[in-house]
Order: sequence, then C-alpha cells, then structure tokens
Amino acid sequence: MMVIRMNEVYVTGHKNPDTDAICSAIAYADFKRRIGEENVVAVRCGDINPETRYVLDKFSLPEPEFLSDATDRRLILVDHNEFDQSVKNIEKAQILEILDHHKINFRYPEPIYFLSKPLGSTSTIIAERYFEKKIDLERDIAGALLSAILSDTVVFRSKTTTERDREVAEKLARIADIGNMEEFGIELKKAKSSLKGLTASEIILSDFKDFNFNRNRVGIGQIEIVDSEEIERRRRELINGLEELRREKGYKLVVLMVTNIMERSSELLAVGDISKIEKAFGKSVKENSVYLNVMSRKKEVVPPLERVF
Amino acid sequence: MMVIRMNEVYVTGHKNPDTDAICSAIAYADFKRRIGEENVVAVRCGDINPETRYVLDKFSLPEPEFLSDATDRRLILVDHNEFDQSVKNIEKAQILEILDHHKINFRYPEPIYFLSKPLGSTSTIIAERYFEKKIDLERDIAGALLSAILSDTVVFRSKTTTERDREVAEKLARIADIGNMEEFGIELKKAKSSLKGLTASEIILSDFKDFNFNRNRVGIGQIEIVDSEEIERRRRELINGLEELRREKGYKLVVLMVTNIMERSSELLAVGDISKIEKAFGKSVKENSVYLNVMSRKKEVVPPLERVF
Repeated sequence: MMVIRMNEVYVTGHKNPDTDAICSAIAYADFKRRIGEENVVAVRCGDINPETRYVLDKFSLPEPEFLSDATDRRLILVDHNEFDQSVKNIEKAQILEILDHHKINFRYPEPIYFLSKPLGSTSTIIAERYFEKKIDLERDIAGALLSAILSDTVVFRSKTTTERDREVAEKLARIADIGNMEEFGIELKKAKSSLKGLTASEIILSDFKDFNFNRNRVGIGQIEIVDSEEIERRRRELINGLEELRREKGYKLVVLMVTNIMERSSELLAVGDISKIEKAFGKSVKENSVYLNVMSRKKEVVPPLERVF
Repeated sequence: MMVIRMNEVYVTGHKNPDTDAICSAIAYADFKRRIGEENVVAVRCGDINPETRYVLDKFSLPEPEFLSDATDRRLILVDHNEFDQSVKNIEKAQILEILDHHKINFRYPEPIYFLSKPLGSTSTIIAERYFEKKIDLERDIAGALLSAILSDTVVFRSKTTTERDREVAEKLARIADIGNMEEFGIELKKAKSSLKGLTASEIILSDFKDFNFNRNRVGIGQIEIVDSEEIERRRRELINGLEELRREKGYKLVVLMVTNIMERSSELLAVGDISKIEKAFGKSVKENSVYLNVMSRKKEVVPPLERVF
C-alpha cells in the first residue's frame, strides 16, 4: 500500500508504462528535487515491463511506487497528455505540469507549464532541462534517460528519431559510461522482446494505448521482436486474445503492432472494423494480418487511422 | 493585399489582438530568424488597438501584415492555443508551434513544439527564449516585449503577474532604455483607455474573446480605464451594444469587463444568461452590472464561469 503524503507532487507516465514513461518520471522527479522542489516523487500507474526492469536493475534504480487513483492528487504528467491514457480519476486531480512528445489532446481550465517537442522521447526533453539549468546528471539518471531514448527510438531506427535525440543520447552515454549505444540498445530490446512465459493478454497489454477517434474507441498495442520465430507460432493465439479484448471492452478496432526491429517493419494484427486499416494504409488485411513498412505507432499508425475515423 | 510566399511560416496572435498578441508574434518571428530560420514572418489576424499602435510607433516597428485566411498556411500560434480564438480556417492550416500562457484547449494529430507557462504574458516566455539561447535583443524588440509584459500584467497589478515577469521586464527595460517602468506602463494604458472617437461596438470588440463552455458560446471583452468618468456616461450605450452583439451572434452570455487599473477592480457589464454570473461570483447583477474585485479575465473570470456552465 502506498503511503500518501498530502503535500507531495507525483510525476507519472501513462498507463501500461514503457521505459520512457517510467524513466522520464524518475528523472524529472530527480530534476525537480535538484532545483529545490523536495516534495516531488516519481510514481507509476501500471506494471513495469521486462525491458524497464532490465534498465532499473542495470542502473540500481528503485521501482517507482504504484499510484492507483489520482483523486485530489497534485500531478505532473510525463510522456502523455491525454486523460484516456492516464491514471484512474485523472480528471479529479490537479495537473501542475506536462512534458511530452506525443500528439496533443488536452484541455485544462488553468494555465499550466506544458512542454511538448516533436522529439524521439520524453527523456530527451528531460535531459535537455538538466543541460539548460546546468545541473550535473548522476550516472544512474543519465543511464535511465539514455535507455529510454534508445527504447523509444528503437535504437535510432524509428521515424520519430531526430538529430537532437542522437546528440543528447551521446552526451548521456558518456556520463553513464555506455561505450557502445547500438549494442546496449539491442540488449535492451532483447530484454523486452521475449514473449516466453507471457500469456497472449499480457503480450497485448504490455504496451497498449487507448484512443478516441471521433468518439470511436480504438486500442493499439505494440510489441517489438528481434526475430519472428515465436510470433509465427503464437499468431492465432494473439488474434484470439485481441478479439476477446475487443468484445470485453467494446472497442471499435483493436490492433497489435508486431514490430521487427531488425527488419524495420511491422505486422499489424487487427480485429474489429478492419476496413479502417485497409482504408488508412491502402492494403488489404488477410486473416487479420497486414505487413507495413512502419515502425512508429505515434507517427505512422495513429495519424492515418485517426484521419479515416 | 498580402503577398503570399508559399514557403513562409507565419507567426500569429489571436483574433482582436492585444499588445501581447502582436508583440510576441513580432518578437518570436525575429527570434526564429536570428536562429537561422529566415522564412518566419509575423502576421496579425485583426486590427491593431491604440495601445499597440503607441508601442509600434514608440519603437519604430512596422505593423505586421494582415492574414485573413489560414487555409494551407504553416503557422506558429502565440498568445493563444484555442482554435475558436484564432485566424479563419485555422483547422485547414498546418500548426508548427505554439507559445502561450493561457488555459489549454488544444488537439492536434501530430506531435509539435508546444510551450506554455503560467506567467503574466507570452512575451515573458519569448524573452526567455532569447536569454536561453544567448541571443542579444535589439532595443526595438526588447521595447516591444517589455510593453507587452506591462500591458498583459496591467503594469504588474494583475493576479497573473509572477516574479519571473518582473525579472524579465527589468532586464528588457535596461536594453530598451526605459528608466521608469511604472510611468511607462501607465502611459501605455492611457493610450489604450481612451474611449473617445470609438463606437460602442469598437470598444466592446477592442479586446474580445470567444469561449465555448460546455457547448455554450460565451463572449468576454475587456477594456481598461484609468478613471470612470467616460464609462459613467456611456454605460447604457455599451449595454445596448452588448445586447445587439448577443442577438446577432447567438451568444448565451456576453460580458464586458471594465477594469479600473487605479482601483484594481472591474465592473462587469453583462447581457444574456446573467444568472451564470451571479452563480459564478455569488453577487447579484443589477441593471446588467456588477462590481468585482478582479482584474484578470483569464485567471479570475473565465475559470469560475466555465465551472458553472
């Protein structure tokens, strides 16, 4: 059970947190404490995935506590801005700040600090805050931020990657003592990509986001793989899992992006109104599956889908 | 007629621009050019008010060109983020960046640069961008930014004023060679507050903003006065003007805040569903008028009104 201290400010990433959501929360809470705001604490509103576990272990960072309900809390949101993707009862919380790199869908009745940049990760933006304020990064925090950049940009392979992400990552790698970023990045992704011991539902929900496209509920999960052997065996099981989720939660469309990092492409497994996928990408979906030359959910899958809804 | 150059990026403030809307656009376009983005140009999407005219004349700055339609344009929005308050056909434009200090109500299908801070003016945020990037401010741009800070904070009297606004204003005053900020600020406000030669409609629309509160259209104008003599004479005429505007445009409620800078309070003239004003502020409205100890539309009038709708 989490101990609630009333004057605390919680920094949280999105539901089903990925490495950027967890590490940017840990780092931004550290940054705020370093500039004198002692009462800022990182939390999470979902389970830690195997990749993030690997990062926390490697840099000896404690797992943020779990925040189950935002009612009456004071929050800083990182790596998301849409209430649909946030902690339970977010609409009953006071939002103090937002730092993000996603599309924007936000409404709040007061002026707040809101910083969003079209960069590869929120962690790049948090690292820039340290550099701007000339605050020395500790090795563990630099390592966490570097890991999150490598994770979110799929080791600089994603279309969302910018020159700025590379520059910042290089600086962080020097501080964190990581000699070979490419090697370290693939190591990270291998920690994430193992499907062993996970149920279909766990795989689907490991990095899953809810969207509201013109009042249609759409869910899009993403997993990354380094080879396709396991997925070949479990494809049918995953499609059944998607179908179950769709019926249970009333989604119009549920998609799982299976992104092959080495081949830099994705297989989309989809159930529900798959005509929307066909319309958005101009390819026909066969047996709930279509291959696309895309890697980024945010930049290459969400915008075309949102447009057809 | 404005000459359209297709590769240009336009920086624009809101409709019915005030000094912060115009000066932050001029300064941010200058900032972008100074960091090497040659194709960035300040525009306006409404008429220059007498206060802003005074500022442009004083610092010998050219009036930005008028942008009548945003279709297919590439835009940077300053001092606003709500499409309701922006240039015509804003939904057909590409939005590149937003810099603002208002409440947030924004949705965009791609990640963009979005910087909002709870400070007294957008110009404070623009000035910080120069300081951060260590770009020397020219006297004219510093003067425009200072004027906008003094204007938006009502010479540091508005509740929206922060310590940061004062610090930045002091730095700008040194560059712009303004010895006495208080004196200069009152001078500015006098340029704005003269109602002479203006029709009721011109007075009402001189700084008027549209809001959508739970799908109810509400319009809130604000004027600043240094003494109440003129307003006493023209109160009835202004209420008739508000009523005409309400009927013409189908507003649920139209308000004119008449803010007395010296007394640091406002008379609200209101037509339409005035029960909402009574509910929001707990005071009864008599003959379409109520006096409140408030000065800020954004911080003290919009939030309580939005809550009761």
